[in-house]
Amino acid sequence: MDLQAVVDDIASALSERRGEGKVADYIPQLAKVDPKQFAITITTVDGQVFSAGDAETPFSIQSISKVFMLTLALGQAGETVWKRVGREPSGTAFNSIVQLEQEHGIPRNPFINAGAIVICDIVLGSYKPKEAIGEYVRFMRYLADDDMLTIDRAVAMSETATGSRNTALANFMRSFGNLHHDVAHVLGVYFHQCALAMTTRQLSRAGLFLAAQGADPISGYSVVSASRARRINALMLTCGHYDGSGDFAFHVGLPGKSGVGGGILAVAPGKASIAVWSPGLNKVGNSALGTLALEMLTNQTGWSVFGA
Amino acid sequence: MDLQAVVDDIASALSERRGEGKVADYIPQLAKVDPKQFAITITTVDGQVFSAGDAETPFSIQSISKVFMLTLALGQAGETVWKRVGREPSGTAFNSIVQLEQEHGIPRNPFINAGAIVICDIVLGSYKPKEAIGEYVRFMRYLADDDMLTIDRAVAMSETATGSRNTALANFMRSFGNLHHDVAHVLGVYFHQCALAMTTRQLSRAGLFLAAQGADPISGYSVVSASRARRINALMLTCGHYDGSGDFAFHVGLPGKSGVGGGILAVAPGKASIAVWSPGLNKVGNSALGTLALEMLTNQTGWSVFGA
Amino acid sequence: MDLQAVVDDIASALSERRGEGKVADYIPQLAKVDPKQFAITITTVDGQVFSAGDAETPFSIQSISKVFMLTLALGQAGETVWKRVGREPSGTAFNSIVQLEQEHGIPRNPFINAGAIVICDIVLGSYKPKEAIGEYVRFMRYLADDDMLTIDRAVAMSETATGSRNTALANFMRSFGNLHHDVAHVLGVYFHQCALAMTTRQLSRAGLFLAAQGADPISGYSVVSASRARRINALMLTCGHYDGSGDFAFHVGLPGKSGVGGGILAVAPGKASIAVWSPGLNKVGNSALGTLALEMLTNQTGWSVFGA
Amino acid sequence: MDLQAVVDDIASALSERRGEGKVADYIPQLAKVDPKQFAITITTVDGQVFSAGDAETPFSIQSISKVFMLTLALGQAGETVWKRVGREPSGTAFNSIVQLEQEHGIPRNPFINAGAIVICDIVLGSYKPKEAIGEYVRFMRYLADDDMLTIDRAVAMSETATGSRNTALANFMRSFGNLHHDVAHVLGVYFHQCALAMTTRQLSRAGLFLAAQGADPISGYSVVSASRARRINALMLTCGHYDGSGDFAFHVGLPGKSGVGGGILAVAPGKASIAVWSPGLNKVGNSALGTLALEMLTNQTGWSVFGA
Repeated sequence: MDLQAVVDDIASALSERRGEGKVADYIPQLAKVDPKQFAITITTVDGQVFSAGDAETPFSIQSISKVFMLTLALGQAGETVWKRVGREPSGTAFNSIVQLEQEHGIPRNPFINAGAIVICDIVLGSYKPKEAIGEYVRFMRYLADDDMLTIDRAVAMSETATGSRNTALANFMRSFGNLHHDVAHVLGVYFHQCALAMTTRQLSRAGLFLAAQGADPISGYSVVSASRARRINALMLTCGHYDGSGDFAFHVGLPGKSGVGGGILAVAPGKASIAVWSPGLNKVGNSALGTLALEMLTNQTGWSVFGA
Repeated sequence: MDLQAVVDDIASALSERRGEGKVADYIPQLAKVDPKQFAITITTVDGQVFSAGDAETPFSIQSISKVFMLTLALGQAGETVWKRVGREPSGTAFNSIVQLEQEHGIPRNPFINAGAIVICDIVLGSYKPKEAIGEYVRFMRYLADDDMLTIDRAVAMSETATGSRNTALANFMRSFGNLHHDVAHVLGVYFHQCALAMTTRQLSRAGLFLAAQGADPISGYSVVSASRARRINALMLTCGHYDGSGDFAFHVGLPGKSGVGGGILAVAPGKASIAVWSPGLNKVGNSALGTLALEMLTNQTGWSVFGA
Repeated sequence: MDLQAVVDDIASALSERRGEGKVADYIPQLAKVDPKQFAITITTVDGQVFSAGDAETPFSIQSISKVFMLTLALGQAGETVWKRVGREPSGTAFNSIVQLEQEHGIPRNPFINAGAIVICDIVLGSYKPKEAIGEYVRFMRYLADDDMLTIDRAVAMSETATGSRNTALANFMRSFGNLHHDVAHVLGVYFHQCALAMTTRQLSRAGLFLAAQGADPISGYSVVSASRARRINALMLTCGHYDGSGDFAFHVGLPGKSGVGGGILAVAPGKASIAVWSPGLNKVGNSALGTLALEMLTNQTGWSVFGA
Repeated sequence: MDLQAVVDDIASALSERRGEGKVADYIPQLAKVDPKQFAITITTVDGQVFSAGDAETPFSIQSISKVFMLTLALGQAGETVWKRVGREPSGTAFNSIVQLEQEHGIPRNPFINAGAIVICDIVLGSYKPKEAIGEYVRFMRYLADDDMLTIDRAVAMSETATGSRNTALANFMRSFGNLHHDVAHVLGVYFHQCALAMTTRQLSRAGLFLAAQGADPISGYSVVSASRARRINALMLTCGHYDGSGDFAFHVGLPGKSGVGGGILAVAPGKASIAVWSPGLNKVGNSALGTLALEMLTNQTGWSVFGA
């Protein structure tokens, strides 16, 4: 299979549709991004890299960071994480507070905002906020094998200034006792971790351990156990796209996590880690062209986890 | 891999725990079942069959039928099915009516009761209820390659008599215009299709096409296209266990569909179709030992769709 | 105070606005009513009657019947009624099923559809459906002091044919054990009792006992105790206009009960019973001109229960 | 009618039940209050005062302040207040966030916490927080005709420290644009205004204008128009006791507002203003003995707004 031809075909097929969807505008910094950009990178488990489009342009990974923060939290707190956050799809929008009230402050899963805020609280542990953010950046640089990764402070500031809904979620959970640190500290970590800027090339590299039984196939180092990698993939598949998770599984058939910056990380177990990016979002808040690109990819490669 | 040893090991490991969980008692006929029964059958895509436990004892497949009814409905109405039923996990109990009001009579997916009732309405099409039920039984006999399959009329009657909640769901959807036939006719089909009695051997045989790109690997006949098989598997993974779907994906890692009779059908794409049965249910209404058996199976075989 | 001048003024002031609002169209028979009709009748506790407009034209009282059915049910079952239905405003639409699920089949109050269906179940008691309906008609004729009152069978049939939502509510409550009779029988009573046709003159006469400490001030006979009359009035004030009850209390300041036929019964304790009718409904489903007429009335008479 | 005998009878009848109910413990300062206290004061519109029990012991008025803050807000912003807060009963707990999401940040009424926070935002207007609090205290001293009224700063601090839920509500509304000032400033006002300490004598005096068509019958000064007084009373009746408002109207039949400190202010239009206090709360969060005392009062005086 000529994967370079595959990504070129996809980029070419979508070139006329660049700009489709609606760029997230609730965070001013994100609203400034050129909507006509598109990128795709496949990094295979044997270390080959195939890119097309704007694969060297960094974008804000936003909620995709939730996968890596969960990985960090599991490393620190192990399975006790699941006492404070669930593992079920939410059936509601990414920032809904309704279920949180019905379920007494326990978020449904670590990939909705409320769940990710609890994960930040766990990662904070005995760190100071800056240390926790530093720990996360080091981890991401290690996974992406690139020391140049940085947090876009303008985005982090922009989110802080417009983060009333997330502040509400954090205080709400604190009222149920499910936030142990100062709300401002937890949100400081939260707003910074999702403001990491990455290219599709870096992102696909960083997610490779999830396609390779938890170990980095290039360096050989283990990031998580094979069992934990499978479980993170399972969560990505059932909960990775908010209230569009079922549809993504239906059409794409791969574990994936999207961000409002327009990026999606997808995992083809045993085969490859794939990152796509295009800023315009569809109705449920996932990259419109990014989703299409991944659907084309699985149709051409047969990589769906639901096929033979 | 010696699959006979695998199923024997599982049956043996669970033998002392037989009777765990709580037998469904809201349908009187189901409450009479001996809780200490357990069965497992693996049918591989190359036609081999491995069973342990009570694999020749028929049980009521209940909601597992929803997979096969969806297959029938897709055959009759194609992708128009999705105009009347969604593809997203529900985040609520199997018989909840709340989301149905919020979403104007469109059930979240075909594997909750409301969705399955709409599917029955679609399968009814221009049939009379008895003809639709006959069509379904013929389809199941064909898939299971066994002309002895029958509907347990005592169970169907028992469900009809206690079916107020389902009657409410059906009338509620009709009030939104999402039920086209007479409510009594639709429910007649609904209560009969889930009262089919099957053994784990028959059930694993019937599900084999889902593990084999949509074609029966033994006869060679195509049941559905490869793409449709993948999509049905995706729905089973995200929605197959009600509000325990996320947990099932997390622990077992296979598309599956459970029934309150204690059966579960699971699909390992490209490898095998697996049926387990044990009447005692866990807190979210899925077979307690059945779920454990499948978790043991994927741990021993590495068949999780989320691993390499 | 010249009450004839008051009602004449109101009718005159609203004459140019006749036809405002939207006639209920979900029941075909109601949709046929001429929207330009308007009537008002005040019956004072000393027996005087003041009417203006179409006060001799019968209309379908619809949900206003819920006040009288509650009175009957309290007569038969006493305070045990409150074990099966609440006394709190619902905060939702008249036919919502959401709270019913959260509160396990106990409707919030007797003036939403679900609550009124339970009340019908209570009134059914050991009667046959036809007997219960007969009992209700006799009671209404007695209260209105008019043997000509009849149920409009065309409306009753029309509601039966379009009553999927109410059928859903009834079956849903039955699934929680809060309906003791056959659903079809209960709904038979329900659809007939709200199809009673009355003029504003008859309706204001029938409600007079609520303004007069529970006794008919003209005949002298006691209908309910003074305490029960107060409590029925309280329920009308807090729950009588579905999710517009707060607004009605705010603007009108009288206990009242509306129906989708465009009628409203209002009670000025110690002073009078008032009936208004105009078919066009406002956004929350209450008569648009009827509500305005009552607001004008309380402004002119000072009859608000919240003033001196 | 010998009102002194009435209050003495009530105090005597309830003396053995002192301590019933559960003292609010989510605010540490409130949890310290002796639960066996009880007080009642009636101030009639002609200026007579009748007290029994601990009528000179100040208690934290808590949510009762919402009535007075609403009065201030209406004075400042007039009917535009209703663009930012509704007038309907909530059907949920006092601090629920669910409806706020469904209704896009517009609280159902000014007497639930979310609504009162918006009212604080309105009262803040162009004031600084300390000025707004000062304005409120002056208003309360004026109404109570007592310059000794003060805010209990220990309670205000205690609420600030435990106010995560209210902070969540405030940020949540801000995310919908329904909070115009800094969240910390609004909450500063909110936590202070409800920490006012008053005796039943002072409180019944302060509420007198609501029983007297909006004017203070003793000084003769107008506080609000007669129409506005009626409307505030209407809101107290439909929304004054959270999800127990219907029951309070049913049993007591007077406009009233309760606070978690165990106080209740009730208004008998044209007759009197009544304050009761007893710290133990019933299941819906209203003073257990206070509610009983008011029910006894209306039974003995016939002051229910729903009777003749």
